[in-house]
Amino acid sequence: MHTVQIALADRSYPIYIGERLLGRAELLTQHMPQQRAAVVTDTTLAPLYLGTVADALVAAGVSVIRVVIPAGEQHKDWHTLNAVFDALLANRCERKTTLIALGGGVIGDLTGFAAATYLRGVPLIQLPTTLLAQVDSSVGGKTAINHPRGKNMIGAFYQPLAVIADITVLSTLPQRELGSGLAEVIKYGLIRDAAFFEWLEQNIDALVASDADALAYAIRRSCENKIEVVAADEREESGERVLLNLGHTFGHAIETGLGYGAWLHGEAVAAGAVIAARVSQQMGLLGSADVARIVALLKRARLPVAAPDLGLERYLRLMGIDKKVEGGTIRFVLLRAIGSAFLTADVPQRAVAAALAASIANA
Amino acid sequence: MHTVQIALADRSYPIYIGERLLGRAELLTQHMPQQRAAVVTDTTLAPLYLGTVADALVAAGVSVIRVVIPAGEQHKDWHTLNAVFDALLANRCERKTTLIALGGGVIGDLTGFAAATYLRGVPLIQLPTTLLAQVDSSVGGKTAINHPRGKNMIGAFYQPLAVIADITVLSTLPQRELGSGLAEVIKYGLIRDAAFFEWLEQNIDALVASDADALAYAIRRSCENKIEVVAADEREESGERVLLNLGHTFGHAIETGLGYGAWLHGEAVAAGAVIAARVSQQMGLLGSADVARIVALLKRARLPVAAPDLGLERYLRLMGIDKKVEGGTIRFVLLRAIGSAFLTADVPQRAVAAALAASIANA
Repeated sequence: MHTVQIALADRSYPIYIGERLLGRAELLTQHMPQQRAAVVTDTTLAPLYLGTVADALVAAGVSVIRVVIPAGEQHKDWHTLNAVFDALLANRCERKTTLIALGGGVIGDLTGFAAATYLRGVPLIQLPTTLLAQVDSSVGGKTAINHPRGKNMIGAFYQPLAVIADITVLSTLPQRELGSGLAEVIKYGLIRDAAFFEWLEQNIDALVASDADALAYAIRRSCENKIEVVAADEREESGERVLLNLGHTFGHAIETGLGYGAWLHGEAVAAGAVIAARVSQQMGLLGSADVARIVALLKRARLPVAAPDLGLERYLRLMGIDKKVEGGTIRFVLLRAIGSAFLTADVPQRAVAAALAASIANA
Repeated sequence: MHTVQIALADRSYPIYIGERLLGRAELLTQHMPQQRAAVVTDTTLAPLYLGTVADALVAAGVSVIRVVIPAGEQHKDWHTLNAVFDALLANRCERKTTLIALGGGVIGDLTGFAAATYLRGVPLIQLPTTLLAQVDSSVGGKTAINHPRGKNMIGAFYQPLAVIADITVLSTLPQRELGSGLAEVIKYGLIRDAAFFEWLEQNIDALVASDADALAYAIRRSCENKIEVVAADEREESGERVLLNLGHTFGHAIETGLGYGAWLHGEAVAAGAVIAARVSQQMGLLGSADVARIVALLKRARLPVAAPDLGLERYLRLMGIDKKVEGGTIRFVLLRAIGSAFLTADVPQRAVAAALAASIANA
């Protein structure tokens, strides 16, 4: 087991990375202020892992409430959140009762937001069960639910007491889900870590084959990269943290345009990253060889590199309600090299149009 | 105009107290990061004050969105919150758009929670229009909405950029609303400021008559008292802040038991404070003369001092889901003297029963 220690302004917490961690109750209990916990998971994961986690906690003397919500991004909404609140209130969960998020990004985001707002904030531990959640959504304190008008529009910054990334659960992950996580892993290489990008080029086949050592290293480097960014800009105020959104402005447009759930988040980010790379290329910042390297690595990770044809107008409109809008101008995260991203509002619309056209043509 | 400066761990903000402040746009604009604002108010207050605030902002070059929600505690729920989110999203409000809460406690709590969670947090300015909101709910960063299972169950700690307490608006406040605010004012004297309690005994008639100078002093001392407590315990972790809840455990039971809105919050707190004083008396902590002084002052403020007859069982059950419960034990804020409150879990049920019986008998 490897531990990555997160140090933020006024809080500090560990990320545990290793095999067969779900049944190790001591990793949870050492952080809990009270021997009570509510484990929140979904209908898909409950039969697979809820017993392992809950039984271990009960054996350690913890009183456990089990909250099972419907699986799927379409349930990351107020209605489901309220069902969690109902369960917590019906079981008289208190301010020191720990919420444990056992699941992927949807469970983590929704349970995290529940923890941030139930009784104005209760302890939270993340047990991410997808690669995407282990390398991205469970780390950094962003929590949210969706709103009919946009993804992640309602939420809070709220840090967990600990994150436990069990690599063993990834072996049962569908290939598309694994690929979705690899999109975010590759993103860290793209925005700030050229050496990691090269390591990924050498090890992508092992990762696609769920090799435990390769996954452990990729998760660790991803978390370390993310934490360095988050520590510098916890509440996304200085702009540093916005770099993590490479590919996300286009990716969110794809997800919203196709309807949530048609593409996995990482798939949309992969196609979005290619568009961002092509915008960078259109602006003379990135060479065609680098764009080709990016496309090649994403393809080897079984990720889509072409954009769905929503039409330019629709793309622009969908991006107009993105959270990364400031003063009415859309800001883009672009690349000046593999391993070096930056934020700019100075992007000609024709560069966006040309990049979109090129990405759609390659569909 | 008097300014009370709030200094918290990592933020600092002013409370402006004075006459005719609503039309002074510079008090708002100097704190706004962007010349855009959404003013949230209710159907009762909109015709009275929304024009004054919005026109002043527009004249100062600010783009203003007006959000009017239905008046009343029964609307402090997710449904109304979502209507605010809808308006903000429809108008493309951004991360730097300031939310301005123009109203009483319901508007302040709900708008504050909207600001805490819209796009994971946007700037907030409080313009409290009731005495209760000016001395209590707008100060200290507590925001929340109600849940069918309990009051203020869902919320966040979120500090405003500024609070503007305009005394002039209090002159149009119904007498019951003014009294409701005076209950919280008297509470500060009770829990930690014996000199202020004596000042209130001398000036209560001027306050009931809405004398501007008396109100300005009472608001200022109340805010100073509240801030000293909040600064020591912003997130209600050490117990210090819990002392502000004198009378609230019983008060919430009264509000919930009678149905939200039957009694005003301060009215329930007044009757609750009398019960807490009588529990203290039952335990030999407080003399009957002090209980009589408390009852007399509350009566002169036109506040109820008797408890509604909900039955002991019902009171205890209603208090069982209170947020101030820890480890299954109910903790009470009691008085060891006028001006000195403390928190204890060591309260015999017979003392509670006797105090409730005495308060109900005096109905």
